[in-house]
Formats: sequence, structure tokens, C-alpha cells
Amino acid sequence: MAKQLASDLISRRNFLKGASLGVGIPVVGTVLAACGNAPATAQSPTAMPADHNMTTAPQGQAGGGMTADEMDAHHEAGIKAFLAGKETTTKGNQPLEPKMDGDVKVFELTSSVIQWEYAKDQKVEAWVYNEQLPGPVIRVTEGDKVRVVLKNQLPESTAIHFHGVLVPNNMDGVPFITQPPIKPGASFTYEFTIRNSGSHMYHSHHNATKQVGKGQLGAFIVDPKDKSKDFAYDVEHLMILNDQVGGFTINGKGFPATEPVVAKKGQKLRIRYMNEGQLIHPMHLHGLPQLVVAKDGWPLPQPYMCDTLNVAPGERWDVIVDCTEPGAWAFHCHILSHAEGDNGMFGMVTALVIQE
Amino acid sequence: MAKQLASDLISRRNFLKGASLGVGIPVVGTVLAACGNAPATAQSPTAMPADHNMTTAPQGQAGGGMTADEMDAHHEAGIKAFLAGKETTTKGNQPLEPKMDGDVKVFELTSSVIQWEYAKDQKVEAWVYNEQLPGPVIRVTEGDKVRVVLKNQLPESTAIHFHGVLVPNNMDGVPFITQPPIKPGASFTYEFTIRNSGSHMYHSHHNATKQVGKGQLGAFIVDPKDKSKDFAYDVEHLMILNDQVGGFTINGKGFPATEPVVAKKGQKLRIRYMNEGQLIHPMHLHGLPQLVVAKDGWPLPQPYMCDTLNVAPGERWDVIVDCTEPGAWAFHCHILSHAEGDNGMFGMVTALVIQE
Amino acid sequence: MAKQLASDLISRRNFLKGASLGVGIPVVGTVLAACGNAPATAQSPTAMPADHNMTTAPQGQAGGGMTADEMDAHHEAGIKAFLAGKETTTKGNQPLEPKMDGDVKVFELTSSVIQWEYAKDQKVEAWVYNEQLPGPVIRVTEGDKVRVVLKNQLPESTAIHFHGVLVPNNMDGVPFITQPPIKPGASFTYEFTIRNSGSHMYHSHHNATKQVGKGQLGAFIVDPKDKSKDFAYDVEHLMILNDQVGGFTINGKGFPATEPVVAKKGQKLRIRYMNEGQLIHPMHLHGLPQLVVAKDGWPLPQPYMCDTLNVAPGERWDVIVDCTEPGAWAFHCHILSHAEGDNGMFGMVTALVIQE
Repeated sequence: MAKQLASDLISRRNFLKGASLGVGIPVVGTVLAACGNAPATAQSPTAMPADHNMTTAPQGQAGGGMTADEMDAHHEAGIKAFLAGKETTTKGNQPLEPKMDGDVKVFELTSSVIQWEYAKDQKVEAWVYNEQLPGPVIRVTEGDKVRVVLKNQLPESTAIHFHGVLVPNNMDGVPFITQPPIKPGASFTYEFTIRNSGSHMYHSHHNATKQVGKGQLGAFIVDPKDKSKDFAYDVEHLMILNDQVGGFTINGKGFPATEPVVAKKGQKLRIRYMNEGQLIHPMHLHGLPQLVVAKDGWPLPQPYMCDTLNVAPGERWDVIVDCTEPGAWAFHCHILSHAEGDNGMFGMVTALVIQE
Repeated sequence: MAKQLASDLISRRNFLKGASLGVGIPVVGTVLAACGNAPATAQSPTAMPADHNMTTAPQGQAGGGMTADEMDAHHEAGIKAFLAGKETTTKGNQPLEPKMDGDVKVFELTSSVIQWEYAKDQKVEAWVYNEQLPGPVIRVTEGDKVRVVLKNQLPESTAIHFHGVLVPNNMDGVPFITQPPIKPGASFTYEFTIRNSGSHMYHSHHNATKQVGKGQLGAFIVDPKDKSKDFAYDVEHLMILNDQVGGFTINGKGFPATEPVVAKKGQKLRIRYMNEGQLIHPMHLHGLPQLVVAKDGWPLPQPYMCDTLNVAPGERWDVIVDCTEPGAWAFHCHILSHAEGDNGMFGMVTALVIQE
Repeated sequence: MAKQLASDLISRRNFLKGASLGVGIPVVGTVLAACGNAPATAQSPTAMPADHNMTTAPQGQAGGGMTADEMDAHHEAGIKAFLAGKETTTKGNQPLEPKMDGDVKVFELTSSVIQWEYAKDQKVEAWVYNEQLPGPVIRVTEGDKVRVVLKNQLPESTAIHFHGVLVPNNMDGVPFITQPPIKPGASFTYEFTIRNSGSHMYHSHHNATKQVGKGQLGAFIVDPKDKSKDFAYDVEHLMILNDQVGGFTINGKGFPATEPVVAKKGQKLRIRYMNEGQLIHPMHLHGLPQLVVAKDGWPLPQPYMCDTLNVAPGERWDVIVDCTEPGAWAFHCHILSHAEGDNGMFGMVTALVIQE
């Protein structure tokens, strides 16, 4: 068995370079295909480990209203769809380019009602910013002068709270406390100078259980002015967790329509968790520890390691993953009913794919 | 727009000195009124920011069974009621003065059943200590000799557990493990010397899902003997979170009957969170970071910053807020369904008002 | 009253030496009996503290459909059953002895369906490893070569994920991503070299909401190769928290069938919390603080103190308790509805018994 592990390593290394040898775990080759690096050459999923590690039985027994084989087929279909990618065509979290007005970065948002495809052929009414769920990513740098103009095309009044961003009180976005509500058809202009860096959010603060629940939410990321004060990382991935519109979702999509997280071996990956839902989501990454470096945008004085990070509603956490181990690593909420059912994985599931 | 922000700042500063100029955000002036600093002069809530920041539409569209204007009116009424204060006349968390028996501080508690007004004109049967919800605050100093005499006027037996306070085993308050239950009509005397400081609680430990759920709970605060070992703060605020009797409450009241947290600019505010409920409550303070300094009464060796602090049942957390930014800052549980509905904010909502 | 406390201490000390004097709190003497140190000599539970601390009333009042006395009798029966021990005969978490194949430690697991007695005379269908719930404890040392052979006798396919253990990707146990599913009747061999120490878990990663929910779970503990790098402790206790098969359980049992945690005065007790359920469980230990030393098997750079530790699904936490205070200390989930009802304590309740 010890030798077998060595051969496994070789096979794995090869397919991670592009699945060109026709050996290795085909699904991982397909993951790379989903990332645009290789054609998706479907193979029997039993190719590699089964030869050595598996002893099979003549046939499966019935269970849960399905035979074991029927159940497995459902599970496999989900994984294949995830690996093939392109389950849905829309995508949230797109960068929002500001227009410059002198030295002010102007971001334009429009709140409106659309049908959002959170999983293949499954749509739900969503109240979104700029027709995206999550809304477009606003990204600025400490010291920037920022203006956010919101046009309200919802059937209700609204307002934006910049959750975690230090702003003057009258820019805080709470109707009847810091501003009047923005009526349907009206616009409102927020303007402030950025004082703190980190992973933050923007979302409705009016009738918010409903409005945020329906999708009035997005990421507001602030890079530090002095880049040398930022955490060291090569690639980053934003993960907005939700359990409302579209059910259990990561970045507005439920598995298998979720996107894989992709990095190369040796890279340091920064993940920015944001919980816009109503439930905790303890996010478990397989195979590689997470170094927790910031809470709500504030650097932790003493980072610590974990593999399962409990993210509560309204919280943001930044972690760094040192991508030492190639492969496709499952990555999901560990409240298992947010991630898997009799018909396979769904909801808050993705994978970290580390390419050699 | 840049100039407008400057004028905003001036307006804000003026009304925060007492709303005497008749300009500024009127609701914040009203907040100060609620704090007893200025008359509540009702003004259009659109006075300040709307002139410059708002572009209005001719009329609102229908939404959620109400027009947008009808919905906004409900929301505004809640905020106004909060700002006006005095929604309810009763108040929990009152200091309990001990009687001295030699060098022993004697605290007398009576458990009884009352009707508790958790929000205006909304009462619920509550099982309380000394007719308060939360019960009166027991506050002592490390090294104190303490006696707590409980008289049980409930229809069930009971017992008190001093949650977090280090006591001898036979004073731990668990019927049939450390003491007999205290029958209806009976009294029991707890006596111990205080060994640890911090933010603690006392509550029933008999049929506790029901008894704590109905209100058998209160704060037990221990100041360190050596004050120089305490955290530096100017003002403090106790926040007992609950999700049982009276629904979602802070200190026994649901918004708008909750009390604002009040501090002056430049002060360091200590908040003592205690969760006596059955659910987590991630508490989000707008506008100012929270420095987390203690967990369950024990100082953290390495305080850290956040804006949303997840408080689980049974936990206590101490945070320090450096009150640098004047204004009325929303402060609420970020499980939004604990805080807001179609008819406006309710439950676990208050505001931190920082006066200049 | 001060003198009374002194006499309490004497009584307590005596019974903690074995209840041999026939004085002291009898229930605690019974706890020791449950630990095999003394005969369970039933006495009136009012013996000690009532004499001095209790003032009784002529009779209890009705409450909750029962009289107070009836309710107390239910509560007392539960405590007595817990103290007497042996509520159920089966036990999970048994050490799994490996067979040696050269320098490889071989652990054999069989998944099968049984009836599990989670509380006295209460059985439930469970999908277990080696007929135990939790499954047997796999315990190895950093650097060990480990082989785990799983034989699947479930009606569904399955696979094992070694949650927290660093393994090569193809040993990660996720069907259709890293391996084929293990069909009913089939076997699969996992093999890897242990790279990280700590408190980890193994469980199904196929149809996992159901399979882990039904009991496909166990502890995987890795001792550091260099023992001097481990935390200092004298005794340890594993606590696998669950809220699925059998309801609210600790180590597969609900109170009063749970086992007490036992240590001697002066010992350092290490507790390894593991949450295999779907809900958070904030674990509250009475009487003694918990020093939190590791998260998910990774040592915290800065341990901190608490009395209530919130354990989320998939998380593991290691704490050290300095057992300075003799007695029987209640130990339970502080979501009270996981621990107590009108008929007494149930579910996630045990006690830490510190013997002199």
C-alpha cells in the first residue's frame, strides 16, 4: 500500500499539469477544465483509487427510496455539473468601476427587482444592485474620497448602510435616524472619505430583513493605503454567504452553480468571508488549514489556525491559506443540511482547486 | 458635494450641542431630548440630507401590501417612539443595595410572577426577581463576603446558579446535585466570598428552560479589588440579550421601548454583553469599532477589534468603544429578523448616542 | 452563616473522601459511587445545606400541570439515575487497537445499521462504525503510517472524510471528487502518513446530512511526536456533541445516560470538544474556568479563559481545566432547551466530579 501512495502522487501530479496522460482522477482533470485549462474528457470516476483501494460488491442494496446506485448517480451528476461549470450565465460580485469627479470616485448603484438564476433553471425574485447578486464589488483605498449614488427602482423605500466602513453619522444609512428613506424612483448620494481598510459590506438598512433577504447586499473592500501593512497574499477569493434568496448560497449561487476557488501550488490565498444571511455558517476547508488574520476588517493582533471557521450574520473574516497541497479540496458549510441531501450536494458547497 | 459634507458636519455639530439652531437632523435632536438634554421639537425628517443628497420622485409605488409611504410611516413611528423615550415605565437592571451584616453584604431577592411590559401596552407573564426584568444588578468587589437570600414565591421550586462566579460547590445552585430545590414559599441563603471579577450572571438552575425563559435572570458584576487592573473606561452599559419572555429583547424591552446607550464624545464606553436567551445574537454597532477585552469575565490576553460580536447563550463579553464620532449610531442584532419587519424595527435594536 | 460555610467545607471534604462518615451531600457521595469509589447509600437530599440555609414552607403549590413536589421528584429521579450510572450498557468512543502491517498501523472499521440505546430503554436506528456511537477512537502519533480499511455494510454507498487530518487529496474521502463511492458490501482502504497533531474527527462525506446524522462519526486523535510540545495535562475527556440521532447527546448518550467527567483535585483536565451536530452548543462548565488552548487541533498562540465555550458544527476545541475545587460541577450546553425540561434534565448534561 505504501507504494501505491507513491504512484497516486505521480498520477495526481500528472493530471494536475493538465490531465494530458489520460490517467489520474478524472474529476479533478475536469475541474481544471472548468477553470479553462484543459478539455473536459469524461472518464470513469473509478479509474485511479478503485484499482488499488476498492474492493467492490456484486451489487448495491436499496436505501432511502432509491438504490445505492441511483443515489450515487444523483450525487455524481451534481459533481459533474459543478466541474463542468457554466451552470448559470449570470454572475454577481463584478468589479464596479468608478467614474472620477475630480478626485472623487463615484460609484453608481441601482436597486431593482429581477429574476435571479441561483441554480441552473432555478430562478427567484431578487432585489439586487445593478442586476447582480451579490451586488457589484465596490473596491477603494484608504484615504479615497468616495461618492455612492443610489437610484431606487424598488417598490419600497430603501437606504444603504456601509457595514464596517467608518463614515460620518449622516452617511450611515439608517432612515429616520441619519437620513430620510429613499422613496421609490428617488436617488440619494452618499459621500465620505475612507478611513479604515478591510473586508466590509454594503446593504439596505430599511425594511432590511426583507430587503437584504431579497438581495440588497454587496461587498465593500478597502485596501490599505500602505500596501506593506496588508497581509501577504497572491490571490484572493470573496465568499459572500447567504441563506435567504435562493436558499443556501455562496456568492448568490447554490451548488453546483457555485464557482470553484482556484489557486496555484505555492500561492497564498486570501479568502474574505462575509455573512449576509440569518444563520451561522461554519465554513470547513478540506486539506489545508486556514490562518485567521482579520475580524470585520480589523487585523487580529494574534492570527490563529483552524479548519472550520464559524461565520455569524454580519461578520467578516479574512483568512490566508497556504496552498501547499495540489488537488480539488471540498469547501463547504459544515451544517451539513446546508450542503447535502439524498440527491447530492447543494447550496453552500464549492471546492478549492490547487493546480501544480 | 465635497462642500456639502462640510456643511453637514457643521449642522451635525450644532444639533449635537442641543439642536438649538433649528437645523441638523431633527431625529438626532430628538435623541438628545430622549436623553433629557433638549425639547423634542418635531421637524420634517427630510430637513438636512434631503436638500443636498436626495432626488425625489413624484410618488411612491405600492409594495408589501402597503404603499412605500405607508410602510415608511410605520418605520418612522417606531423611531420617533424610541427617540421620545418613556415607552414603558418599568425598568430592569436596577442596582440592588446590600444590607450589611457585619462585613457581609446581604442581597435579598424574591422570585415572583408578574405581568411585565416589554413594549408599550404589551405585557407578558414573567417570572422575575424583585419585580424587575432583568432582575436587579448585584454588584460587588473581589474579596467581598456576599450573602444572597432568595425567597421563592413562584409556583415551582427553584434555585440560583451564579453563572461565572467562582463559588464553593455547595453554593452552586443545582438542585439534587449541590442543594435541595427551594420549594414554593421557602427561602434559601447562599453565602460565599468573591474570588473572581468580571461580568457574570445569576439565574435559575431548576426547570431552567422554563424559569430562565420566563425571566429568572439578572447580572452579577464583580469589580476587581485592584482598580488599576480593570479596563480603562468612563461610562458603562449593560446589555442583557434575550429571545424568550417578551420576544427579542435588550434588558427586558423590545424596540422602541429599549433604552439608548449614551456617552459623550471622547469617552471610553464599556459594554457588558450577556446572553440569557437560546439563540446567538451577533451585535452590530454602527460607526465605531468595538475592542473586545474580556470573555466571560476573564480579560483576554490579546484584545481584538470588531464591529459585530457574536454572543452565544451563556456567554458574556466586555468591549470598549472609543466614542470619537458624535451622532446616533444604530446598534442591533444582525440576525435581521430579530430586529426589523415590514412595520419597522422591533426587538433587539437600540442606538449609541454620542454627544459632543 | 460564615461558620456554616466552614462546616460545609468539612462535610464536603469528608464525603469527597468516600462518603464514609454518612454526612455530606449524599448525591455527591453517589457520584463517587458512580465512579466506582463508594457504595451508593441513598440519603435524603436535604441533609446538609437545608439544615442551615433553607427555610421551608408548609407545602408546595401547583405549577405546570404538576405540583412542585411532583416536578421535583421527576428532576430528582433523573439526577439519581445519572449518579447511579449504568443507565445503558453500551458505550461509544472505545479505543480502536490497530493491527501492525510492518510499520503501518491498520485500523479496521465496519459501517453498519444497529439499534443504539441513547438513553435507558430508548433506542433508535443508528448507522455506526464498529457497532459504537460515536465510533471507536482512532488514536495515533504524528509521523505514523496509518491505514484505515472501511467495510461498508450500510444500505447506501459511503466514504470517510478525516476531518482536520492533513491527507493527500486522493485520501480525502469525497465521492466523485477524490474517490468513487464505496458501494454497499464494498471495502475501501485509506492510507496516509500523519502530518499534524490535534483533536480531529472522521465521518461520512457521502449523503452526509443523513449518514453523519445517523451516526457515521468518530474521533481521530493525533498526539504530537514531541510530547514536550503537547499541552500539560494529567487526565483527558472526549466530548462529542450531537443533536441528531438520539436527540441532544454527549458521546452518543442523553442525560441521565451520559457519563460523568472525573478528575482528582490538583489534576489538569484536558477536554476535547467535537461538534458532529447541526447546531451550536455553548458548553458551560460550572465552578472552574476553562483555558482554551487549541482550535481544530491547532494550538492557539494565545490561550484565553472562559466558562462557556461556543462549539459550532465541525469545530473542535481543546481546553484545560485546573481542577482546584472538589465537588460535582454541572456541565451542560447553555442552550437550555438542549438540557432541561419540565420533567428534569435531559440531553446535553453531565457533571465534572473532582475528587479530593
